[in-house]
Order: sequence, then C-alpha cells, then structure tokens
Amino acid sequence: MDAAPHADTKAMAFDRAKLDRLMDEAGLDALVLTSKHNIQYLTGGYRFFFFDAMDAIGVSRYLPVLIYVKERPGDTTYVGNPMESYEQETGALDVPVVEAKSWSSITSAELAAAQLRKLGLAAARIGVEMAFLPADAWLTLQKALPEARFAEALVPMERLRAVKSSQELALLREASEKVVASMQAVIAGHKPGVTKRALVEALKREEIGRGLAFDYCLITAGRSFNRAPSDQTWNEGEVLSIDSGGNYRGYIGDVCRMGLFGEPDGELVDLLGEVDAIQMAAREPIRAGARGGDIFAPALALLERSKHRGYTHFMAHGMGMVSHEAPRLTGKGSVPYPGYDENLPLQAGMVVSIETTMLHPGRGYIKLEDTVAVTPQGCVGFGDGGRGWNRGGVNAR
Amino acid sequence: MDAAPHADTKAMAFDRAKLDRLMDEAGLDALVLTSKHNIQYLTGGYRFFFFDAMDAIGVSRYLPVLIYVKERPGDTTYVGNPMESYEQETGALDVPVVEAKSWSSITSAELAAAQLRKLGLAAARIGVEMAFLPADAWLTLQKALPEARFAEALVPMERLRAVKSSQELALLREASEKVVASMQAVIAGHKPGVTKRALVEALKREEIGRGLAFDYCLITAGRSFNRAPSDQTWNEGEVLSIDSGGNYRGYIGDVCRMGLFGEPDGELVDLLGEVDAIQMAAREPIRAGARGGDIFAPALALLERSKHRGYTHFMAHGMGMVSHEAPRLTGKGSVPYPGYDENLPLQAGMVVSIETTMLHPGRGYIKLEDTVAVTPQGCVGFGDGGRGWNRGGVNAR
Repeated sequence: MDAAPHADTKAMAFDRAKLDRLMDEAGLDALVLTSKHNIQYLTGGYRFFFFDAMDAIGVSRYLPVLIYVKERPGDTTYVGNPMESYEQETGALDVPVVEAKSWSSITSAELAAAQLRKLGLAAARIGVEMAFLPADAWLTLQKALPEARFAEALVPMERLRAVKSSQELALLREASEKVVASMQAVIAGHKPGVTKRALVEALKREEIGRGLAFDYCLITAGRSFNRAPSDQTWNEGEVLSIDSGGNYRGYIGDVCRMGLFGEPDGELVDLLGEVDAIQMAAREPIRAGARGGDIFAPALALLERSKHRGYTHFMAHGMGMVSHEAPRLTGKGSVPYPGYDENLPLQAGMVVSIETTMLHPGRGYIKLEDTVAVTPQGCVGFGDGGRGWNRGGVNAR
Repeated sequence: MDAAPHADTKAMAFDRAKLDRLMDEAGLDALVLTSKHNIQYLTGGYRFFFFDAMDAIGVSRYLPVLIYVKERPGDTTYVGNPMESYEQETGALDVPVVEAKSWSSITSAELAAAQLRKLGLAAARIGVEMAFLPADAWLTLQKALPEARFAEALVPMERLRAVKSSQELALLREASEKVVASMQAVIAGHKPGVTKRALVEALKREEIGRGLAFDYCLITAGRSFNRAPSDQTWNEGEVLSIDSGGNYRGYIGDVCRMGLFGEPDGELVDLLGEVDAIQMAAREPIRAGARGGDIFAPALALLERSKHRGYTHFMAHGMGMVSHEAPRLTGKGSVPYPGYDENLPLQAGMVVSIETTMLHPGRGYIKLEDTVAVTPQGCVGFGDGGRGWNRGGVNAR
C-alpha cells in the first residue's frame, strides 16, 4: 500500500525522514506507541485534555495508541476514547485515521491490532513501549497478531526527539523562564517561618498562573537534605533550594535556584560561587560536534580540586518532554541510566540539563540546575535568571 | 510466617478484615498492586509527590508497587523510587517494609518478585492490576516467579473501596463543594465573549487555589455539544455547561453545573427544571439495603414521560478515587461498563454520581451531575449548591 495523498498533515510536523531512517536501523516496520509523550510528539502536540492528569476510569484505564508505519504517513492511526471526537471536531486531533472508540486498555489494543491487520502488518516487526504498554494490552496484541514480532521502540523514539526544532526550543526556553520567574516570586513573597509545604503550594499556583502544568517540586530548607514538601519551616538565615519541573505544552522547564532570608555571608557566597563555576565550566565544551561525554571533563576537573568534592556531585542529561531523556551522556551521575550517547557527537538543537549539587554538612543543600541548548558554535542557557542568592521575603506582605 | 508485631501501622487504615475476606473469595494469597489509586488507598493516603502528575523518567518510568499478603499485614511491602526515602523520613510513607530503590518498571518488578520469594510466596496466587502493570514488569514477574499464578485484582479492590469511611466521605464532600465553588466563581467572574479555553484555565486556577488537583473540565457553550476547551466563545444569552473533576487528596469531586449570561427564559427554566427533577427522582430509592439497580427506576420513569426523552440520558455510577468505580450499577448509560453490582444491595458509605444530560437541539447541552452518599435511611448530596441557572458575569470586572 502506498502513502495516502494526505501525507503532509499536522501530525507529521516532526522529522519524518529521520524517523523512517531510525526505524530502518532498528528493523521496525511499524510503531505502536502508548506513552503520552511520544504520542504528543508524533501528533504535533496533541494530548487529550480529559486524561491529561489521570488514567484510571471505569474498569480499566485510558490508553491512547498511535500507529505509525514506516514511509506510510497517510496510514498513521490514532486510537482513543470516544470523547476525543470533540478534539477531532476542533482540529486539535488531526491524524489521518482516528478510532475514538475505546474505554479500556484491551479495547485500545484490539482496535490497534485490527488496524495493523487491515494495513497488511499482521506479520510485521512492530516497535512498542514496554514500560508504557499495559500487560493486558500486550497480551491482546500478541494474541491478535501471533505472527508479528515485537521490539522495544525506546531508543529510536528517544533519538528522534533528541534534536529539538526551533519551535520546541522556544517552548523549552519559555518553560524554563516561567519556572525561574515562579521561583523568584515564591522566594520573594514569603516570610521566615513559612513551611516547605506552603512554598510548594505557592509555587504550584505561580507556575499554573503562568500557563504551566506543575509537575513537581523538590525543596530543602536549612541544613536538612530532605527534599520533600513537609511542615518543616524555612527560617531566618537559612538557605532554601527549590528544584521544580513545570510543563509547558509538553516541554519541561527544570531548574534549581537558591533562596536565603537575609544577606549571604562570605562562606555562602563562596559555596554558591563554586557551584556556579562548575556549572559554567560544564557549558564550555558544549557545541555541535563535540563528544557528548566531553561535557563532564571541565566540570569534574574543577570538582576534583574542590575541598567540597566529597559531598558535591555533577550530572548532565538530556531533557525535553521527559525530565531525563537523550542524549544519554553518562551513567556517572546519581541516576543510573545508561550513557549510550556518551561517544556520539552533540547536535545543534539538543538540550541538556546540567546539575551541580553540594550537600554541605554545615550549611545545607546548595544546588544549581540549568538548561542549555546546543548551538552550532556553543550553547545557550534557557532561564538563566536568579542564579545567585535570591533574597527571601523582599516582596512579602 | 506470622504477622509481624507492627501490624497496626498507618498503612492499615482501611478495613483489613474485609480485604482478607475479599481476597479469600477471589482465591488470592497476595496482591501486587501498581495503580496509584490502589496504592494510595492501601497506604492510608500516600502518593509520592514527585510522580504525582507524570510517570516517564529516564529510560523507563516510575512504577510503585505495593505488596499485601492476606492476613499478614506486617509483611506489607512498598517498592518505590530512591527519592521516596524523603517521604519515609517525614513519615508520609509509613509501610512495614520499604524498598526505595527503583528507577524503572523492570527494577520495580524484580524487587517485588524478590520480596515475594523471600516471603515464601513464589508459588502463590497473586492478584495484579493488568491495566496498570507495564508489559515489561509483567514479563519480569512471570520470569522471576514461574510457579506463581496471577489473577486480576480489579474486582476485590473495587469492592474494598466501594464503602467509604467517614474520613473518605468528608474528603469527597469537601472535593465536591470546592468544585462547585470554583465553578460559581468562574461563571460569575467572566463577561460575554470569553473563550471556553479561558474559562477552563480560570477553573483550573480556582480549583488549585482551593487545594484541589485539577483533573479535567468538559465544557459546552451555546448550542454546541462539543465539550472540549477551545476558542469558541460563551456569549450573551447562551447557556454554559461546566463539568469538572477536582481531586482532593485522592478523592474526586465531579459535578456539572449550568451558567447563563442574562435571565433564563421560561423554556430554559423548564428544561433545567426537568433535568433537576430527574436527578432528584433518582435520589429517592437510594438508601442502605436498596438494590443498586433500583436507582434507575424513578429517574427513567420520569424520563419516559418527557417530550425530551429522545435526547436526554440518565446515568448513575459509583465514584471516589476513580471517576467511575464500584458500585457498578448498570451498563445502560453511555459508558459501557459492566453493571455487575446492579443486583447487590447498596451499603451506607457508598457514593454514587448521578447524571442527567439533555442534548437539546435548540438550546444546547443542559446537564446536572451530582454526588450522593448512601446513608442508613436515605442519601445525602455533596456539593449541592448552584444547581439552578448560575448568572454569568455578575462579579466580572
């Protein structure tokens, strides 16, 4: 079957030639995607509003499925819930074939399998997302398509998403800036004695007021290294670290900034200065063509010479729609993901999160996390405001 | 192995004897739960803040697992992410055994399987949630426990949750009231010409400002039956239906209310009056001991006599942590779930959502959805305010 004439739909706003090539390399004829982020990506930004925040309904769950067939964009099929017909009507959901008929994971899989069979792909090599495919949907696919061969689609989809378009970069910049502005408003707007829980609730309101979806906030106060929202208070003279992810149309702004009630003493200026220096050193080697793993050398060199090296960590990881995604730069950090992109060249449009965390035994949790985008000549920081000591309470009423 | 001495933990705040009995009836020795709602339920309200809104991270996803062994509460085991040690420290996560070590669905399943083996349950009958168990975790469990037999845990868990405690009822009441108050603020606070998208954004802020998590909003304006947020405007003389779920500590407030710019004419008063009458008729038979399916008789009798019956629908379904849950009253509604509780008696503490929807060809989408809790003598409505025509713009600036 040839590609249908309406191949150039909104759903094809990603780099289709690159996807076809990646599928070819991975030996995949078709993709059956079930993660919200990958479906959002391949549909040009669509995410059904009703199940944006939850999945459970009825005796099962919401399970959207996107079928993409290599070199046949006109056969792209979306399986969803009946209420998604509203989204079709408004044009928000714009995919060549839509089956908005499912109230369960099993029905979604049955509809997907029937469509694959109809498309002549009953014995195809099919890429799936095993961590985002419910077990009952998996069993249904296998039963309905006994001749199909299934393989993991994670790496091709990650590599597809790793280089961001200018539109995606703009969303990531905006997300980062909105998160920083939200943090600054929260730090300036509260008085000593406020609980971490109240600060997180305030941050949530600030982020949502700026059009973000609030994903999370990790927060420490004083000498504690505990990063959960709680009834612990942030007091006069104490440091505050605030690390939050805010999601703007599918793209995450993820930064960490520091607050303090009062003026920082010399030691605090030096400690944050050292964290800042490591962060800036990490940016130095970043440019298109540099080896991914090379981000670490100057940062780790600086860290090696520090008297705080015993409790200070540096990490770098790709980010975008998922808070840790490709490029996979190393497994050296505190998060044990494989660094399978470590020896590949960085490309313009890749976006990297860099994080330096000092668990100072006397002064507390001191951290900066920044988002930098790779450019042909170097890199550019998104949301680079507020990287020093932000004074608490200066706008508090 | 006997129950450990620390059996009466916070994690056991649910009706353990009932769960043991339901497991016995279902032939289950242990539960391996992976849905956020059931884990929240069995841990006495715990939900890890970092992955409250998202699941994807790194090369996999967050997958919490709760193991409960029949009649052995001291062996209850929680498998989670390393960052959940923060929640253990603050006491928010309080389960006898905690394995906060997983960054992937496969690791979570491996840790769960190892613990089941350690507990002597390698060949047990294990209840799982197939719609909430990722395929790779399922394969891992099967491989690690080849002698175990797996069965679906949905129905026992639903029946366990179907009767709410007084604390749960208070949360559901508060959720409903907060959603109604949010809707009233939004309707009163906007002028003609506002888009549905802006109304939904405003509702989200209102709900979050009241301490709810915003789950969704279905919204119609004028004569359209399209319920998606969009650029369509709500104009002078037009009706507005606003149906939203707001989540308060795991419990959903889910009501639908009507708005109107201007005074309702006689026809609109009559139409909403008829919807209201059907809703109130449905409440009549509700009391402990009544047959679940009997909710429908008086509502459907009234509907049968209506000249609007061709485009008016009535539905009733249990609700609580999931927007459609037990009691499963019937499959007659527009949502095709089995009504397997239809012939069982209602019990005090069950909570039912009742919905009457009129798709009036001339005036638009007119709907009320109410939440009612079953009591020994009858029922009580939660969030019963604003059930008439709420006037738009009366507080608009």
